[in-house]
Amino acid sequence: MKNIFAELPPGASLDEQFLELLARPGLRIERIVSTGQASPPGFWYEQAQGEWILLLQGEALLRFADQPLAQQLKAGDYVDIAPLRRHRVEWTMPGRETIWLAVHYEAAALPV
Amino acid sequence: MKNIFAELPPGASLDEQFLELLARPGLRIERIVSTGQASPPGFWYEQAQGEWILLLQGEALLRFADQPLAQQLKAGDYVDIAPLRRHRVEWTMPGRETIWLAVHYEAAALPV
Repeated sequence: MKNIFAELPPGASLDEQFLELLARPGLRIERIVSTGQASPPGFWYEQAQGEWILLLQGEALLRFADQPLAQQLKAGDYVDIAPLRRHRVEWTMPGRETIWLAVHYEAAALPV
Repeated sequence: MKNIFAELPPGASLDEQFLELLARPGLRIERIVSTGQASPPGFWYEQAQGEWILLLQGEALLRFADQPLAQQLKAGDYVDIAPLRRHRVEWTMPGRETIWLAVHYEAAALPV
């Protein structure tokens, strides 16, 4: 048994920290710790796998390419990101840890 | 987008509440809200699927049949329960909501 709030990166981290919590065929659960990072300007994630995310701590702005405005996420908010749906992290709160739980899962059938 | 701490059952609930958050082939994510319930005496879960759990709020005692003592879970604790590993919930905190995130996943190969 481990705790998801333990072993956080040092406060001055320049990069997001990715920690794999579980890896099984077609499934990967990871913790992501952001400390003010955002996706690079103009960059969009476009992943073949689905991704279910739960914000555990902190605040973030999540933007989908098919929506005009970013969504503000706070602790407890969860959202499913379908395979190939373009998205980016516009902002995370500077000066404290924003902790995400991400469940990456294999899509049964991908759209062409 | 939804919040996992929203729409909790009324405080006087007799039963645990199960809420499906995501269902995909081989994967099911659910929220479980306990309000003092425990597994019935002598009852053991023995599931064909794997189950990764994260305690989001509250406290619980989780017992594995292959261990002499129960593990105390508090907020942020997570544990993977392998397929067919017998376990039970010995106790959850009465008088408040204990909130579990459970990721049920299909095992690639089951032990015989």
